[in-house]
Amino acid sequence: MAKIIGSSLSNIPWQSKPLNCTDAIWRYTNNPVIKRDAIPSSNSIFNSAIVPFENKFAGVFRCDSKSRSMDIFAGFSEDGINWSINHDPIKFEGADREILKVEYRYDPRVCFIEDRYWITWCNGYHGPTIGVGYTYDFKKFTQVENAFLPYNRNGVMFPRKIDGLYTMLSRPSDTGHTPFGDIFCSQSQDMTFWGKHRHVMSTIKTNASAWQSTKIGAGPIPIETTEGWLMIYHGVLNSCNGFVYSFGAALLEINRPWEVKYRTKPYLLSPQEYYECVGDVPNVVFPCAALTDASSGRIAIYYGCADTVTGLAFAEVDELVEYIKRNSL
Amino acid sequence: MAKIIGSSLSNIPWQSKPLNCTDAIWRYTNNPVIKRDAIPSSNSIFNSAIVPFENKFAGVFRCDSKSRSMDIFAGFSEDGINWSINHDPIKFEGADREILKVEYRYDPRVCFIEDRYWITWCNGYHGPTIGVGYTYDFKKFTQVENAFLPYNRNGVMFPRKIDGLYTMLSRPSDTGHTPFGDIFCSQSQDMTFWGKHRHVMSTIKTNASAWQSTKIGAGPIPIETTEGWLMIYHGVLNSCNGFVYSFGAALLEINRPWEVKYRTKPYLLSPQEYYECVGDVPNVVFPCAALTDASSGRIAIYYGCADTVTGLAFAEVDELVEYIKRNSL
Amino acid sequence: MAKIIGSSLSNIPWQSKPLNCTDAIWRYTNNPVIKRDAIPSSNSIFNSAIVPFENKFAGVFRCDSKSRSMDIFAGFSEDGINWSINHDPIKFEGADREILKVEYRYDPRVCFIEDRYWITWCNGYHGPTIGVGYTYDFKKFTQVENAFLPYNRNGVMFPRKIDGLYTMLSRPSDTGHTPFGDIFCSQSQDMTFWGKHRHVMSTIKTNASAWQSTKIGAGPIPIETTEGWLMIYHGVLNSCNGFVYSFGAALLEINRPWEVKYRTKPYLLSPQEYYECVGDVPNVVFPCAALTDASSGRIAIYYGCADTVTGLAFAEVDELVEYIKRNSL
Amino acid sequence: MAKIIGSSLSNIPWQSKPLNCTDAIWRYTNNPVIKRDAIPSSNSIFNSAIVPFENKFAGVFRCDSKSRSMDIFAGFSEDGINWSINHDPIKFEGADREILKVEYRYDPRVCFIEDRYWITWCNGYHGPTIGVGYTYDFKKFTQVENAFLPYNRNGVMFPRKIDGLYTMLSRPSDTGHTPFGDIFCSQSQDMTFWGKHRHVMSTIKTNASAWQSTKIGAGPIPIETTEGWLMIYHGVLNSCNGFVYSFGAALLEINRPWEVKYRTKPYLLSPQEYYECVGDVPNVVFPCAALTDASSGRIAIYYGCADTVTGLAFAEVDELVEYIKRNSL
Amino acid sequence: MAKIIGSSLSNIPWQSKPLNCTDAIWRYTNNPVIKRDAIPSSNSIFNSAIVPFENKFAGVFRCDSKSRSMDIFAGFSEDGINWSINHDPIKFEGADREILKVEYRYDPRVCFIEDRYWITWCNGYHGPTIGVGYTYDFKKFTQVENAFLPYNRNGVMFPRKIDGLYTMLSRPSDTGHTPFGDIFCSQSQDMTFWGKHRHVMSTIKTNASAWQSTKIGAGPIPIETTEGWLMIYHGVLNSCNGFVYSFGAALLEINRPWEVKYRTKPYLLSPQEYYECVGDVPNVVFPCAALTDASSGRIAIYYGCADTVTGLAFAEVDELVEYIKRNSL
Amino acid sequence: MAKIIGSSLSNIPWQSKPLNCTDAIWRYTNNPVIKRDAIPSSNSIFNSAIVPFENKFAGVFRCDSKSRSMDIFAGFSEDGINWSINHDPIKFEGADREILKVEYRYDPRVCFIEDRYWITWCNGYHGPTIGVGYTYDFKKFTQVENAFLPYNRNGVMFPRKIDGLYTMLSRPSDTGHTPFGDIFCSQSQDMTFWGKHRHVMSTIKTNASAWQSTKIGAGPIPIETTEGWLMIYHGVLNSCNGFVYSFGAALLEINRPWEVKYRTKPYLLSPQEYYECVGDVPNVVFPCAALTDASSGRIAIYYGCADTVTGLAFAEVDELVEYIKRNSL
Repeated sequence: MAKIIGSSLSNIPWQSKPLNCTDAIWRYTNNPVIKRDAIPSSNSIFNSAIVPFENKFAGVFRCDSKSRSMDIFAGFSEDGINWSINHDPIKFEGADREILKVEYRYDPRVCFIEDRYWITWCNGYHGPTIGVGYTYDFKKFTQVENAFLPYNRNGVMFPRKIDGLYTMLSRPSDTGHTPFGDIFCSQSQDMTFWGKHRHVMSTIKTNASAWQSTKIGAGPIPIETTEGWLMIYHGVLNSCNGFVYSFGAALLEINRPWEVKYRTKPYLLSPQEYYECVGDVPNVVFPCAALTDASSGRIAIYYGCADTVTGLAFAEVDELVEYIKRNSL
Repeated sequence: MAKIIGSSLSNIPWQSKPLNCTDAIWRYTNNPVIKRDAIPSSNSIFNSAIVPFENKFAGVFRCDSKSRSMDIFAGFSEDGINWSINHDPIKFEGADREILKVEYRYDPRVCFIEDRYWITWCNGYHGPTIGVGYTYDFKKFTQVENAFLPYNRNGVMFPRKIDGLYTMLSRPSDTGHTPFGDIFCSQSQDMTFWGKHRHVMSTIKTNASAWQSTKIGAGPIPIETTEGWLMIYHGVLNSCNGFVYSFGAALLEINRPWEVKYRTKPYLLSPQEYYECVGDVPNVVFPCAALTDASSGRIAIYYGCADTVTGLAFAEVDELVEYIKRNSL
Repeated sequence: MAKIIGSSLSNIPWQSKPLNCTDAIWRYTNNPVIKRDAIPSSNSIFNSAIVPFENKFAGVFRCDSKSRSMDIFAGFSEDGINWSINHDPIKFEGADREILKVEYRYDPRVCFIEDRYWITWCNGYHGPTIGVGYTYDFKKFTQVENAFLPYNRNGVMFPRKIDGLYTMLSRPSDTGHTPFGDIFCSQSQDMTFWGKHRHVMSTIKTNASAWQSTKIGAGPIPIETTEGWLMIYHGVLNSCNGFVYSFGAALLEINRPWEVKYRTKPYLLSPQEYYECVGDVPNVVFPCAALTDASSGRIAIYYGCADTVTGLAFAEVDELVEYIKRNSL
Repeated sequence: MAKIIGSSLSNIPWQSKPLNCTDAIWRYTNNPVIKRDAIPSSNSIFNSAIVPFENKFAGVFRCDSKSRSMDIFAGFSEDGINWSINHDPIKFEGADREILKVEYRYDPRVCFIEDRYWITWCNGYHGPTIGVGYTYDFKKFTQVENAFLPYNRNGVMFPRKIDGLYTMLSRPSDTGHTPFGDIFCSQSQDMTFWGKHRHVMSTIKTNASAWQSTKIGAGPIPIETTEGWLMIYHGVLNSCNGFVYSFGAALLEINRPWEVKYRTKPYLLSPQEYYECVGDVPNVVFPCAALTDASSGRIAIYYGCADTVTGLAFAEVDELVEYIKRNSL
Repeated sequence: MAKIIGSSLSNIPWQSKPLNCTDAIWRYTNNPVIKRDAIPSSNSIFNSAIVPFENKFAGVFRCDSKSRSMDIFAGFSEDGINWSINHDPIKFEGADREILKVEYRYDPRVCFIEDRYWITWCNGYHGPTIGVGYTYDFKKFTQVENAFLPYNRNGVMFPRKIDGLYTMLSRPSDTGHTPFGDIFCSQSQDMTFWGKHRHVMSTIKTNASAWQSTKIGAGPIPIETTEGWLMIYHGVLNSCNGFVYSFGAALLEINRPWEVKYRTKPYLLSPQEYYECVGDVPNVVFPCAALTDASSGRIAIYYGCADTVTGLAFAEVDELVEYIKRNSL
Repeated sequence: MAKIIGSSLSNIPWQSKPLNCTDAIWRYTNNPVIKRDAIPSSNSIFNSAIVPFENKFAGVFRCDSKSRSMDIFAGFSEDGINWSINHDPIKFEGADREILKVEYRYDPRVCFIEDRYWITWCNGYHGPTIGVGYTYDFKKFTQVENAFLPYNRNGVMFPRKIDGLYTMLSRPSDTGHTPFGDIFCSQSQDMTFWGKHRHVMSTIKTNASAWQSTKIGAGPIPIETTEGWLMIYHGVLNSCNGFVYSFGAALLEINRPWEVKYRTKPYLLSPQEYYECVGDVPNVVFPCAALTDASSGRIAIYYGCADTVTGLAFAEVDELVEYIKRNSL
């Protein structure tokens, strides 16, 4: 039976699976947990990252303004459900002014490694690439070098060094609404110079699993389990009326996370509720963070809905891992 | 006054026209009749074909799985409204293994001719083409040669031979989301070799009838009437936010069904209800089957809604034929 | 404090701002005010123009038929909310038959200047251009020369001559769903020959104001105020799932209206309500007319919703002008 | 027998038709007459306009620089074949600085009307439109208002007022390599305000005349003849390897030049020589000017070759007009 | 050692291989053999079909006119090199007027089977499809049913029935410059009704053989040899500056010609000579016919050059078959 | 007066500037120096890299095969003009098999640093990226990690460490014929992990320098001069008939080579000769290597012509640097 390798965290949000539900993942009944107008300037608050912080929770939130400008904001919560998000975007400090210039920032992830919270996001630097920064306290933020050359999106750190190297997943992209995209893995000794780029997984071009036929990208920080890294990821199908974003999961080798052990053929969650189907970008569920409790095996997944609001879904690790194995491509 | 030429079938689904309705077609008030999750593996059940069978009803259903793979399934119903759909897709037998390979299958139609139920569907064979098979009992299924070279969709049989030849409508297409498409008619002596290809009707490129300006395709098996073949067909408008699928109808010459006598300038039904506007492909109504009662002139039309669920709509043949004639292009 | 320069009109539609609303514009609680099927032949009634007329109100309405053909119709109302729209489209008279040929007509604006109501609309003449006509009574209509060569849309008159010249805003376009588009200003001595074309404003290509990054176009007849011409305009963002139409406002120099004094960085209204997000073209709010009361400073804005129905929103001139100045690009 | 209505001009360039040539137009044997590097800064000199001037010849030349910037230059010749082109581009004077800003300028035409030489060209003003200026002496140049809103190209004046109005042909376009385009006619009382826009002719979408299936545009100043205005125009075919520019001719009604009397089904000249097929844009012949001698009926046509050099071709008016009539669509 | 199965034909065009040539195919030194203006109306004469006829040669030629309309013409030659082509296109007779309507006709092939010469070509019938006709004498021509529904090109007959059925190769296409395309095989009992569609071969998407990565299509009538059907076919590479057409060859199973035994990894001929690289469509070699002499094993291949002229190349069957086997994918 | 900082190399190829040439760069009169068929299997030999080696010259050559597969080959020359190229592609050794898999390889550069020759090239690894390897003797080759994630092209090393770090220019790209592209600079401590990504220069979108408006990419290894790094680079203009590749040059700050001091507004060389305009990709000049003699200031530039053959051009450093400064954007 699969177990989470990590801390116990009994206060994460939780709701038991509905009685007649046969899926491996189920939605929070009070979704969306974060509304589009949760701060005065916001048009929408969606693809956002949450972590445990000082026995409570902190997060970095994508809040698109009423100018439809994309930026990231810090926020805090006692229960992971009711959030107080700062009204001003994160301001990074750092050594090199070239790096600190802000074009646009979106789709953050937050990952605690050793002593600090690393933040990665899609950062505008003559095109989208992976911005990197860190904080100890969600008050003061330091930005370091962009991890890669443009054009890249969905940079997601592993929560510990692997073989002594910082390790990041990402999805090389182009300058626009990228109609292709595989997941790659890269490593670094110092969070500045990156290399050892390995291909992790491709889209599925056949009918076997069309929900992930156009592009795929890592979601929350991978969860270490006794069965491998549990990587929840989004996949995109290109219908005649636009992209549909669903999400599934894979299990990656612990020591060589560019090797895929299992990968869901069906999606785990697809846009079906009103708040997932109707909004600024219809038909999107986009996971960016997960809270886990190693004791109980509970997982709470935060995901953007229709690029407009933030939803919450739940799973239990043993059931989910079992599902991935039984329904693998 | 137009009459249906065919069997009496008093048990088809029916609801009278609402009092203040002035349209020739009206929706069933309990739509959708088939939900997206009617079988455990299904993501959606929509463009599907229903026929009378042993005093009850049988059908071939497009059920897209939670992998978003497209396949066809048999199902049965006592009343045409409550359906029991098999949990496994149809398995065809046949003489040639090359033909039996399954890439993907979708958008079936079912047509009873002489002694058996012919099934046609969009069949993946190095691109989409028209797959052909038959059954006597909806238990055992035999597949024969694909009717045409790729790329083709919406192959729809006439319910009897015309001039001694099997006759099929189809819509030649391309490899993707085909942004063009006319209806053609083809004939065969033996359901294996096809020829005598005739153009039936084109899209309307002007403002006169823009709902059918991008592509058109035959829907249910044409209904024989005293005024010609009643062909219900879908049409597509290309808005700045994607395709909108509506449906209308035409009357074709009985003996030369590639000759169009009348054709609706207005649509008969367009996506307006929530379940037609919101779903995996927003703004789609797509008819694939009709049940008719020659005695009463009642017609029950099954149509896919938003590529997600299945709806039902009703018409009376004399009123509908009259409407087509009065509102013809 | 900004004031409207114009007539008092105490009978325009009005609702006070909701208590907890902090926006400069708020929706009418009974939206949509005009339903899609308000006349028997209509599929949708949306981007339409309303003016005060004989102490009541008249208008020119875009009613797309159930053939999805686009045309303009006259209508009348006592209160600006309940409308009686003619069942037949406007029939223009005029001297030159070449000009009177109808291909298609949509997105009208109506502007009273001196002695008559000028109507401008997107007019099909070997491609979309700006059709021009006038009426004294909304019964008899005269069409004059198209203002410009194709391809053009969103021609909007100023409500008085500027420097002795009729003055019109427009958005040069292409033959299709134009993925670019700036606002220009042109002038005429006689409403037949046009020149002195000046660029007014461009789209904003950066993250600063992405809601207006793809194309922009003037909306209602500009409102003369003590702070300049108040021009409400739509802007389009190109998401991976299609265009999103929002609207904002600018203040133009009174005597040189091609000079922009202020321009909103945030949108004033974006598609968020069901009737704005779901319909024939999802995610569209498109303003075409405004009624104003100079005494109270009240403004009532009519806007198309999802290319399907017509909505109403309200603002107060001093608050709105102040908002534009404080939130200017 | 068709005759030119105009001046005698016995010194225009001329070569008799080769003996075995059966075409209505033949090339100068020493083509190209202007090489790509005829001035020090030039990368190419091609689509250019020539007129009789003080018993000799003057012209306005499109010289693209080695920066591949597009601009127009004046030049002079004694024989129409050997040209001395200024090394600096034309500098216009004018009343309005907004108009005088230079973005880019290309494809000029020159037309003498009454007392001066009018120059029209494709002028960058927030997109391509028709720039207008004049000179008396090819030394001092005055620029007036752009004739139209963007986006437009190939503005060509008629050499006298028609019905008291200046008259210009043009081809409305888009912001890029325009894959569509018809010829329109517009009129003006004062060369500032333009109106009375009339459609002149469309592309031919069928196999009947595919050389003009993608877009068409007027070439030299129309030549007045006893059979109507002789308009030489280019047409474009879209092959799988790019556009092919050929040219043909039409006869327009003298008093209503938007009415086409005859129009060549075959091209008159297509890219076949090395200097027409190989260069910066392969497969282009693009006529911009013609010199005529009313006494002899001789016509000398200047045309750009492969967007690189300038060529010369000849015709006799009676033979050419006869050819147009006999080979008309 | 491979031998041709067929007639001896000692008078086919021939030139020995140049001394230092190491390729399996070599060009005729007097290429092009047919110039673009070989008949008065022609702009170009290229993709054309030649057969032995009454001890001499006859052919069906694609002659595009100076209107750039595409049509097919009959022609005759004593030596296969000097051709006399009719000045008027082929006029077919036939039973059904619907079939005889001419939209456009191009890229013919001619195949003698049993008692007559079958002609297939790309035929416009609401889109391109395979037109079919026959002649006994190249004077009287009869047209029968189009073989397939649109959209199809490059229909090429086998020179005898296979398993009692007429057999044709073709390349399903779309409405434009088709950027995809595999070769399929279809069969018929009567040249009217076609079926048993089998996939023959796909494009090669990898670097292994990029000259055939975009689309492929059969060329001359397949040549029966002791090693299988020798099918010469064209392949297309999509460069950043357009399509490049080369040609290679395959060996197909004699009794199941949809099974590929060998297929060249390198091209046999690619556009390298001036007349292949420069013309109406640069960089095209497109084979449509071959003459063979079973006694000597000589093969003379006719191919279109740059869509402008016709070239000739030679091979010896044993060397060519050996080359195909040694250089097979 | 600018001087080259580097070795004297008196035996590099050289021809004096022609008398009447006023350009800063001139072609070798015997171009092309390497023909397309210089090795038996080659279709074309073009974008290739040459370096001094053991008092003679060695190189890495892009030879596309007659299968149109792209690969790199080593070669040797005594005079830099007559080359002996290996008949088999380079075979790399290395520690990680994942890295050694060959998809495709093209457009190599070679750069001597400290003790070895580093080779960089466009390397297929789930999309194009920058492959890296080295050799000491052009016999044994070792491959190391790809420098970057896909998608990237034109990776060009600086010939010494800068600030203690290996430094590479590159052009992030997409999966196809990339219609955008800027030059970036990246650094590494160890040739494995890369970071400190800086933007160097963008395309020029205005008319000022249209030859470099679509994409740009570094060419030869930058040449160290007393005035900065002399970087020769290609630029692309997108004509209606495809891309045109020219080349220019820039001067970069010695210690911060991402800072551009000067950059040519005009191109230095554009495709004008037959062998540059006609070939597999018409209209391409693409520089990949330069030999320099510090004593004389001579520079010999090798460049690919029409993606088919290899040409040679010459410059003198002081004149070239002066030209760049005087003609800078």
